[in-house]
Order: sequence, then structure tokens, then C-alpha cells
Amino acid sequence: MAVEQFQATAHLQSGTQVKVRSRGFEFTLDEPTEDGGTNLGMNPVEALLGALGACQAIVARVYAKRFNVQLDDFWVELEGDLDSDGYMDKADVRCGYSAVRYTYHIKSPSAQADIDAFIAFIGTKCPVGDSLMQSVALQLTGVIHEK
Amino acid sequence: MAVEQFQATAHLQSGTQVKVRSRGFEFTLDEPTEDGGTNLGMNPVEALLGALGACQAIVARVYAKRFNVQLDDFWVELEGDLDSDGYMDKADVRCGYSAVRYTYHIKSPSAQADIDAFIAFIGTKCPVGDSLMQSVALQLTGVIHEK
Repeated sequence: MAVEQFQATAHLQSGTQVKVRSRGFEFTLDEPTEDGGTNLGMNPVEALLGALGACQAIVARVYAKRFNVQLDDFWVELEGDLDSDGYMDKADVRCGYSAVRYTYHIKSPSAQADIDAFIAFIGTKCPVGDSLMQSVALQLTGVIHEK
Repeated sequence: MAVEQFQATAHLQSGTQVKVRSRGFEFTLDEPTEDGGTNLGMNPVEALLGALGACQAIVARVYAKRFNVQLDDFWVELEGDLDSDGYMDKADVRCGYSAVRYTYHIKSPSAQADIDAFIAFIGTKCPVGDSLMQSVALQLTGVIHEK
């Protein structure tokens, strides 16, 4: 067992702008103007897709050598389906993604059989992907209320 | 039904750096140097926590008025447990988060009962939270291979 803890914070700014921080790094998420935001960044469900693709890409980098795969280029295109009636409280449907599809783009001169085995493997070792495919226990551990 | 599609891409750069893009917005994720990266950004599992907190914060902003809650400040502190033996292929354990805990920080002069009802509600309307609590079907729809 090598259970590690990871941390982040998310701080609401003006309107729907949110500053996400972890270990001194920061990016801003927001909603588009048509959804009541100021469009200063991608929104959280887009960032979630991006985190999934980034996780797959890093797993690809880490495991390429084991499969004798030379990675000249690797990128992931992701798309998810989300029923906004859930989030908008207009219907009793789940508010998260019902499905996420992704396509790998790989540039490599390596043998097709090695690439096939590599592609099949990386899908099984992605921490963000696993967190979405299996459920994660989310727990509200406290509310710090200042008047 | 108001099913919408959201998109993002993740493009592997040098080492473990990945450029995440959606609708013209971009941020870089990476791994710390001790994990073989160049530490140019938070990593994907930290970004996942940040996306969850940002989603909760935006839901808070959107629904505060309905609950008569004045939000003078709102931020979320998140922590997740992840067994790195899964991702490193050292043990047959899940590679994603087993648990995520979060604490809300709220500054508000509103009535305690309104704040309590508000807090209980926002946890149920967060798209990223729902995507983690329930499973999401992930599907590899293609591999575009260039030699």
C-alpha cells in the first residue's frame, strides 16, 4: 500500500470565476457568458475532460518504453455528454456526464502489434479514468462559517 | 432532455508536460520532478480535485439567491486518497481515488438555517461531483495512427 494524499483548493471570485490552486500552481475556471459567466476560462466539466486526457497522455509517456513504442506525438480528443437539466434542477436526471468518448492520436514508427498492446494497457492505468469509471466516495468533512 | 456535448484536448509535450485546451483556453499539467516530471503545473489528479471544487463553487454562486444566502466569500479545500501502487503497476489495486474529502469555507451574514439548507443542496447539483460519485461510461472511440 502506498496511499498518498493530493490536495487542491477552489476559491470563488467575482461571478462564476474560480481560482483553482495546488502546490503553488493556479488556473482560472469560469462559465461562458451564455451560461451567466464571464468566460475567463474553460468550465469545470471541460477541465475534467482535460484532466482525463492529460492523465492518459502521461500514462502513455511513462509506459511507452515498456511496450517498445516510440512516441513522436500523442494527443487525446475528448467529448462528454451532459444533460444540463440536471444541474439546472429542471428534471430528475443525473447532473454529471452520462458518457465520455475519447480518441487517441499517435505518431509512431513502432510495430503495430506493440502499439495495439500499449493502447490497450494505458486505458487500465489512468488514475483520472479509474476515478470516473468506478465510483469515488465524496465526503463533506466540514463547513467553516464566518459571519 | 437537454443533453449537451463538451469537448477538450490534451496534447503531450516534452516529458510529462501536457497542454489541456478547450474553446481556446489552455493550461499546462505536469508531474513533480520526484515523479519524473518537470513540475511546470499541477498534475491531473490535483486538477481533478480543483475541477470538483470549482464546480461546487459555481453551483454555490448560481443557487445562493434561491436559498437567501449572501456569499461574501466561498472556497473549497479538497483532499483525495490515491494508492500509487495501482498506477505504477506494483499492486492489483485501483489506480484512481478511493476517497475525496472536502471542506467548505463560507463567509455569510445569512441565517444559519438557510445556509444549512443551501450547503445540503449544492452537493446534489454538482456535475463534476456526480461524475465521480456515480460511474461514467468511458469509451475509446478510435486510434488515429500516423507513422
